[in-house]
Amino acid sequence: MSWTVPVVSAEANFLCLGMAPCVPLKGAWLFTPLSNMATVKSELTEYFTSEERVHRSKVSIVGTGSVGMACAISILLKGLSDELAVVDPDEGKLKGETVDLQNGSPFMKMPSIVCSKDYLVTANSSLVIVTAGARQEKGETRLNLLMISGIVQYSPLCKLIIVCNPVDVLTYLSAFPKNRVIGSSCNLGTARFRFLIGQKLGIHSESCHSSVPVWSGVNIAGVPLKDLDSDIGTDKDPEQWKNVHKEVIASAYEIIKMNTSWTIGLSVADLTERILKNLRRTHPVSTIIKGFYGIDEEVFLSIPCILGENGITNLIKIKLTPEEESAKTLWEIQKELKL
Amino acid sequence: MSWTVPVVSAEANFLCLGMAPCVPLKGAWLFTPLSNMATVKSELTEYFTSEERVHRSKVSIVGTGSVGMACAISILLKGLSDELAVVDPDEGKLKGETVDLQNGSPFMKMPSIVCSKDYLVTANSSLVIVTAGARQEKGETRLNLLMISGIVQYSPLCKLIIVCNPVDVLTYLSAFPKNRVIGSSCNLGTARFRFLIGQKLGIHSESCHSSVPVWSGVNIAGVPLKDLDSDIGTDKDPEQWKNVHKEVIASAYEIIKMNTSWTIGLSVADLTERILKNLRRTHPVSTIIKGFYGIDEEVFLSIPCILGENGITNLIKIKLTPEEESAKTLWEIQKELKL
Amino acid sequence: MSWTVPVVSAEANFLCLGMAPCVPLKGAWLFTPLSNMATVKSELTEYFTSEERVHRSKVSIVGTGSVGMACAISILLKGLSDELAVVDPDEGKLKGETVDLQNGSPFMKMPSIVCSKDYLVTANSSLVIVTAGARQEKGETRLNLLMISGIVQYSPLCKLIIVCNPVDVLTYLSAFPKNRVIGSSCNLGTARFRFLIGQKLGIHSESCHSSVPVWSGVNIAGVPLKDLDSDIGTDKDPEQWKNVHKEVIASAYEIIKMNTSWTIGLSVADLTERILKNLRRTHPVSTIIKGFYGIDEEVFLSIPCILGENGITNLIKIKLTPEEESAKTLWEIQKELKL
Amino acid sequence: MSWTVPVVSAEANFLCLGMAPCVPLKGAWLFTPLSNMATVKSELTEYFTSEERVHRSKVSIVGTGSVGMACAISILLKGLSDELAVVDPDEGKLKGETVDLQNGSPFMKMPSIVCSKDYLVTANSSLVIVTAGARQEKGETRLNLLMISGIVQYSPLCKLIIVCNPVDVLTYLSAFPKNRVIGSSCNLGTARFRFLIGQKLGIHSESCHSSVPVWSGVNIAGVPLKDLDSDIGTDKDPEQWKNVHKEVIASAYEIIKMNTSWTIGLSVADLTERILKNLRRTHPVSTIIKGFYGIDEEVFLSIPCILGENGITNLIKIKLTPEEESAKTLWEIQKELKL
Repeated sequence: MSWTVPVVSAEANFLCLGMAPCVPLKGAWLFTPLSNMATVKSELTEYFTSEERVHRSKVSIVGTGSVGMACAISILLKGLSDELAVVDPDEGKLKGETVDLQNGSPFMKMPSIVCSKDYLVTANSSLVIVTAGARQEKGETRLNLLMISGIVQYSPLCKLIIVCNPVDVLTYLSAFPKNRVIGSSCNLGTARFRFLIGQKLGIHSESCHSSVPVWSGVNIAGVPLKDLDSDIGTDKDPEQWKNVHKEVIASAYEIIKMNTSWTIGLSVADLTERILKNLRRTHPVSTIIKGFYGIDEEVFLSIPCILGENGITNLIKIKLTPEEESAKTLWEIQKELKL
Repeated sequence: MSWTVPVVSAEANFLCLGMAPCVPLKGAWLFTPLSNMATVKSELTEYFTSEERVHRSKVSIVGTGSVGMACAISILLKGLSDELAVVDPDEGKLKGETVDLQNGSPFMKMPSIVCSKDYLVTANSSLVIVTAGARQEKGETRLNLLMISGIVQYSPLCKLIIVCNPVDVLTYLSAFPKNRVIGSSCNLGTARFRFLIGQKLGIHSESCHSSVPVWSGVNIAGVPLKDLDSDIGTDKDPEQWKNVHKEVIASAYEIIKMNTSWTIGLSVADLTERILKNLRRTHPVSTIIKGFYGIDEEVFLSIPCILGENGITNLIKIKLTPEEESAKTLWEIQKELKL
Repeated sequence: MSWTVPVVSAEANFLCLGMAPCVPLKGAWLFTPLSNMATVKSELTEYFTSEERVHRSKVSIVGTGSVGMACAISILLKGLSDELAVVDPDEGKLKGETVDLQNGSPFMKMPSIVCSKDYLVTANSSLVIVTAGARQEKGETRLNLLMISGIVQYSPLCKLIIVCNPVDVLTYLSAFPKNRVIGSSCNLGTARFRFLIGQKLGIHSESCHSSVPVWSGVNIAGVPLKDLDSDIGTDKDPEQWKNVHKEVIASAYEIIKMNTSWTIGLSVADLTERILKNLRRTHPVSTIIKGFYGIDEEVFLSIPCILGENGITNLIKIKLTPEEESAKTLWEIQKELKL
Repeated sequence: MSWTVPVVSAEANFLCLGMAPCVPLKGAWLFTPLSNMATVKSELTEYFTSEERVHRSKVSIVGTGSVGMACAISILLKGLSDELAVVDPDEGKLKGETVDLQNGSPFMKMPSIVCSKDYLVTANSSLVIVTAGARQEKGETRLNLLMISGIVQYSPLCKLIIVCNPVDVLTYLSAFPKNRVIGSSCNLGTARFRFLIGQKLGIHSESCHSSVPVWSGVNIAGVPLKDLDSDIGTDKDPEQWKNVHKEVIASAYEIIKMNTSWTIGLSVADLTERILKNLRRTHPVSTIIKGFYGIDEEVFLSIPCILGENGITNLIKIKLTPEEESAKTLWEIQKELKL
């Protein structure tokens, strides 16, 4: 009996997890009585069109742990898409979180929030955010091949933002176009790095530009900090700016211990906006790289990229100082800063 | 020679009005040198993908008078689309306005602003806003059949927001699906009506709900004003609320005299958001109606409607008091309030 | 020794929880070396003014449970204030959450996020959101007299949004001006009620107006549902709309079980915006009432109110049907819907 | 008779230009009948508080030419303040524009828009934007000493954003604290410069950082363009990037000819947000300078500054190349780019 499989209509504005038949009719709404007797709805409204949906800007999130939910609330508050789908194998968690998000809909500009443990609910996504296994939360499902298959099957043209462990991704995504796989990881290291530099200087972190968390990349209003103190970040620096790097790593542990994910959510919503609105701004993201900076294996490395509707359209060739230029160094700094 | 026709690449981020050949290469940017010698661009960026554009939320505006420009700035400030195209036969005006909007791009989240006097620039729009002849500005082009043909030819699936004289529209749009023709006119009368009621009550106009500018439709937090004073809006009312209607009409003349169009622009941006984000909220808009309220000819009448990605999906059947219920009355009130 | 008391500079952009002396110098930034040798900061910037702070729009949140954090992230994403202070007796939780919010600052328009377990950090708040004990989370501190004293001592002119148990509030706040005590509780019942009505009608919940969760208050575009079906909400109604009320209560239990608080956070951010921007819109909130609807004791009752910079400036006198009009009924419905 | 002076209540939500007495009662609303007979208002609402206003974030704009109105619409759409006051000696223009902005209030989050030809309406502003004489529009009033006196008298602690000719300002503002005088002029040259660089590189202008329109200041994701081509901007450059400077100047003439002011409006709204929200981000603005870069007279020079609630709190000491470093050169480039 097909009715026992929970099915969610991608067009409808609700979750549908019960045992009763829930037919995914195009445009249907839960509870709508299908009889043709006069109803409050038919008394109130006159149907005007039966055209198909013509436009879509759908985002799906895989995983309802703290990372997935921080992404969801940030995207909803910024009103970035016209449908949000959430997938998780844990139905209780999935239902509680989705009902709560739906109830908040009078306070946001997002028309449709749907969920299911079946990947069908993500069909035709422009963007899928994969958070499964991003944190080693108790009982959390790790990313696996089945998940990736489910996503790609229903949204073959989507862009993927990977918040989970990139090593898993490399294993499963080798055949997917590399411009449509965007890793958010180091983004976060950069956010912390910028915040702490801003604190030291009394300037908002947004004005402390840094493409990667290495000193040669930091500038304020076009003034590279390295020009003001060539020893910055080294042991010779009397101001000990290198402690900022230590702070970045220490605060990562604080955050992981408390299992909060606000920065990740805010950062993923920012990437989502750049991609869906085709902004073509530069942004440091992790991308599958091979053949740059002397790296000869496929690795996930954080590089400033131009992001648009096709995902990563161009890389920016950052210049490193001789001591940072060693690919191994750059890669290792990033591993260290990884969440 | 086809080169003499000014052509604008819909993918590019610039206007191109000169006589020189301006090839609309996909993804090309003005000034980009096509030689393969090392350039600053090739030194800075590494090309990563050659995928086609997959997603679009494009808005076009016909007319660069005060109405068209108020719509443009409101849509840009709300960041509602990923491309804005502007069309006007007056190339000088078109170029000055577009260059100015483009220069403001660091302050907005809109990646691409293009213009041309050729309708090709509007190709594949989700929404086209027609303002030609909205105001009888000196030298302003009135809406004509050629315009409508130009729009429909390049964007057969678009929704049309009509800000110009609806009589023109009815003549030219009879074959276009009526759910995709949205008139913004009375919207404006309603805005003024709500503002003045708010002033009288000390409440923000946004909380003074009114589906059409008739007294039976006004409620505050669900309390119909008619319930508090059944004489409201009549000569018998000691508070003379009917003066609000007179104020609405008087202020319309002030605004027309000064040729300002801020309310229209704000209101059209609001409609644009509801449609592009598929919000399904109710909103009073003018729609082509026949067979309601005893009206037996095709007229443009303001009725609260549910707006979504297919334009007007449903009408709300408002209840009128016996004295308002005469269709003729309702229609005539609306003609009076029309800008 | 005064140094042992953790002190947070309200001007600074950081948390300061250690045992070391943390002098709240005006304008000081953590880590800034105070020596007058040339530093990167003095090389980069030239000090231009030593004026005092002249303007402030500060929000404080008491409690870092799921309710407090959902409020924080919603307010930050909407950029509603120029300083956010967070208070919680649990220093580990407080530090982890605050560090994470601070790291997200490049993605938001909030200049300063501070925290402490001492109420001094909330000094000069325009608005304080009290969430302590809002959920019976394990180990969560309940609201007590000390908390209220701490808040009122440092911000005697603030407005209070109370998300926790209102009974506690009534005990401690009897001397505080009643217009500056705003309860958010039923707001939430209303949000759910509107969402479910919207689902049944295929209309966005934002267009389903309802001042209180009683049927006589519901209207769509000014059309009261009660006018379409006078039996709505009763046992006689063939469409069984009364099930919506049951759904409201059932979903409350789902949400409480999962301990999610997104709707509360979104709703509190909405109230915050209305108050700080002095919007004077109507909104259903809980307020201390006595002498209305035949209620002769001080109770917290949800009523549509006009909200502005002084908190609740006016109540809207909603009309109830005879069967709803019994104060006891209204109050009991609200108790039932309370989170 | 004092009644003949047009007076506007700063608390009220309307303009009041007539000859009749218009008493600026605190909290009064136009048309509100003062009798104590039952009115619709008294039937609908119950007054709850008589507290004074405690918080304010007021912006005033002097001048209703195209510059003033572009500033007004941009600030309204971004919802940056809780009151907007507009001043202009031309009452007809003032009234038409203000009525139109007020009518748009259901579409924005700004509670109060007031106007008058009397500076009293600007009382207690946090920020005053002076646009009088910004463009040599026909019949436009130029900035004069009376205007500055009017502003400073009613808002002694305000910040001033000067969009008009800075030479006038220097004459009248010598006694005003220099950190509270912010010139927006070069901002605009920079916006154009960034847009055109973005076009050449296929990158959003927001990612093309440039503190001042000189080549040594331009970087993309921390990569200075000068590092990629040391001849950039000189005659030796085979790509002729110096044409960008010519384009900047040419487009300025286009814009001036058409009298559009969108970029100025967007840019002033951006400055307004940084100041009112105390963001402490860096931004190039014109400031009264003396003693930097060998300049020994008081001039208005564009320099990246940190902007906060006290206006300009710090300057950033940008590094110039030897050939740019001549103060005279820098100043002359800026004069050339000036609107």
